[in-house]
Amino acid sequence: MDIKQYVTEKARTAKAASRQLANISTEIKNNALLKMAAGLEHAAAKLISENRKDIAEAEKKGLSKAMIDRLTLNTERIKAMADGLREVAALPDPVGEITKMARRPNGMEVGRMRVPIGLIGIIFESRPNVTADSAALCLKSGNGVLLRGGSEAVHSNITIVDILSKAGAEAGIPDDAISFIDNPDRACVMEMLKTNQYVDLIIPRGGEGLIKMVSENSTIPVIKHDKGVCHVYVDSNADLAMASDICFNAKVQRPGTCNAMEAMLVHKILARTFLPDVLKRFVQAKVEIRGCPRTQEVMPGIKVATDKDWDREYNDLVLNVKVVDSMDDAMEHIAAHGSQHSEAIVTSDYERARRFVREVDASAVFVNASTRLNDGFEFGLGAEIGISTTRIHARGPMGLEELTSTKFIVLGNGQIRK
Amino acid sequence: MDIKQYVTEKARTAKAASRQLANISTEIKNNALLKMAAGLEHAAAKLISENRKDIAEAEKKGLSKAMIDRLTLNTERIKAMADGLREVAALPDPVGEITKMARRPNGMEVGRMRVPIGLIGIIFESRPNVTADSAALCLKSGNGVLLRGGSEAVHSNITIVDILSKAGAEAGIPDDAISFIDNPDRACVMEMLKTNQYVDLIIPRGGEGLIKMVSENSTIPVIKHDKGVCHVYVDSNADLAMASDICFNAKVQRPGTCNAMEAMLVHKILARTFLPDVLKRFVQAKVEIRGCPRTQEVMPGIKVATDKDWDREYNDLVLNVKVVDSMDDAMEHIAAHGSQHSEAIVTSDYERARRFVREVDASAVFVNASTRLNDGFEFGLGAEIGISTTRIHARGPMGLEELTSTKFIVLGNGQIRK
Repeated sequence: MDIKQYVTEKARTAKAASRQLANISTEIKNNALLKMAAGLEHAAAKLISENRKDIAEAEKKGLSKAMIDRLTLNTERIKAMADGLREVAALPDPVGEITKMARRPNGMEVGRMRVPIGLIGIIFESRPNVTADSAALCLKSGNGVLLRGGSEAVHSNITIVDILSKAGAEAGIPDDAISFIDNPDRACVMEMLKTNQYVDLIIPRGGEGLIKMVSENSTIPVIKHDKGVCHVYVDSNADLAMASDICFNAKVQRPGTCNAMEAMLVHKILARTFLPDVLKRFVQAKVEIRGCPRTQEVMPGIKVATDKDWDREYNDLVLNVKVVDSMDDAMEHIAAHGSQHSEAIVTSDYERARRFVREVDASAVFVNASTRLNDGFEFGLGAEIGISTTRIHARGPMGLEELTSTKFIVLGNGQIRK
Repeated sequence: MDIKQYVTEKARTAKAASRQLANISTEIKNNALLKMAAGLEHAAAKLISENRKDIAEAEKKGLSKAMIDRLTLNTERIKAMADGLREVAALPDPVGEITKMARRPNGMEVGRMRVPIGLIGIIFESRPNVTADSAALCLKSGNGVLLRGGSEAVHSNITIVDILSKAGAEAGIPDDAISFIDNPDRACVMEMLKTNQYVDLIIPRGGEGLIKMVSENSTIPVIKHDKGVCHVYVDSNADLAMASDICFNAKVQRPGTCNAMEAMLVHKILARTFLPDVLKRFVQAKVEIRGCPRTQEVMPGIKVATDKDWDREYNDLVLNVKVVDSMDDAMEHIAAHGSQHSEAIVTSDYERARRFVREVDASAVFVNASTRLNDGFEFGLGAEIGISTTRIHARGPMGLEELTSTKFIVLGNGQIRK
């Protein structure tokens, strides 16, 4: 069977399974998730030995320590994966919710019923826990899932999918509702992007290269989880202790994430008061500072932030700092250099807080809180499949509800079109 | 300037305008819509004379009478276009609505604010009123619009956009917020589909060929308005007079629309009672019947519905008829042959109505009402830009709310990520 046939057949059978899954009860889905969690824990030894094969190959290929760490499974991480499935089981089922039901002038009632999207294709890199997370969220929201993991984790992923499928089947989940493209040939991804007859949505999770490739070649709708160039603006009348804590948290707590701050914008009135102290705090935490000329006046010897730097996602302990004349200046900078991901203001001014929230364009806009809080758990969605940077369907953290669609339902007693 | 440059420049300036438009007040937008309506009426003579040029060329090319009719503008149709703009002005502004605002355990409030999508690209064929409709809906929802109409209406479209832009500018709408790609070269469409740096969403409105081309080549998210292969299932215990009226309305009232019925499914218990009467009613209305073998027994001499026929959207006075053994049979037929557009059951059985609504997969599912009612006005959305057959973002009639996105807003007092 050639690659095209192989991938198309996978998508076709997964779609058929997703149709059955759409009408399966919450009880069966929850039961399946609990069995899957137990299955992962029971098969931990097998899973770890398969994971060793991936690690051995990664070492042979000379992958970085950080990448090998992300690839590695141990008892603790398997336990965490299983607990993740149990948490999804405990979340409310979004399917079947009816909203906005209202009577029309002709007497019929019209509302919207939440339904699964159908078959969701997820293309991801390296971390094998994504396999279990994605499968759980898709299952709970009634969607079939067609997974395509990175070749570096293929042994681990095949084993995880095998464990989940067997446990699912025992609970009454249709075979193929969780499908995995196990052929490591990279051509499979391209073929997957052409299966628009079967796959309803593609979610790429990974680096810029993967996301660009997927969005440029997909004939299927794509929801991107793209990079974050996030800012915190410290306004003239901010609470300075709060501002320092928020900026420090936004940069340092986990600099490799998409919602970490890349540039701090500070009102000029604070250049001699707030700025020197907060810069010292960053330097003590080994953060490299790159600044505008006015920042350099405050802390001579730091690097100049270049035009290119202002657009960069460092994913590291590097921070751009700019002194601005006003909130309007800050908002202009954010519009020009931000990636519409997570943007924050620290202020005590009611009207400026209101304007910032209204006018700044980002998946999440914060007043007096850290950009690092842009997250499904923190926002109360339960689990999340990622943070969408696409402007349609779902923007920001995507939970179970964002993995569903709606249909209109109409209850009449003989209404016709006049 | 080559085509690529021309289209990219149009998209770039329209995007810049859309950023300004996003924060313009409802009052200014409504005022602009009213001025646009007046502008169309005042310039009716000019518009009709430009429209004549399109008609003359269409006649030279030998386009069908029906197509020329759809292309034609007269005083009455211009009045209807203007009234459409006034109706949009009267609808509530969706931008700025805040929903699901709730306090999180750490004390911050998290909610979602409705915001414009950004810049919407609309690619459409023939009818020039689509230009005014689309521009009005995009304007009211705070979106810039980049329009690309069919070459056969280019003189009419350029004039309409010109009138709308001038009236908009007088009211304070940024130039280029309503943009039109007036170069008739077909290569423009392909270039438009590559402007993902600027255009946030593409809505194609037209025939199957256009929609297929757009979804296969777009690097921008697409919401399709695709064909409808719609069914009405008449259940064993339906109110027969109601069933006859609903089926007749679904087929005959306007057979050329996407929500018209293409196949009637009738429970076998009604084959000798209901079926002969309703078939007679269709034949009197000049509807051609194509049937399954059991339908042929009832009305000998009718054509056999072939395998291909069951999948067809006739857009005409032709109807497939099938006698089925049960509701399950009917639902299987709908799953196999329907296009998930509009599906109806006529029944008096509570539990079967409930199951049909829950299990049938379509943009709108009806109990005891005509499929023809799948429409933005009928459903209470106000105006509509079309009926989406895409499963993400918006499914079914798309009104103003469906032309928006949301952003998360967070109001805190110093919250950081732990």
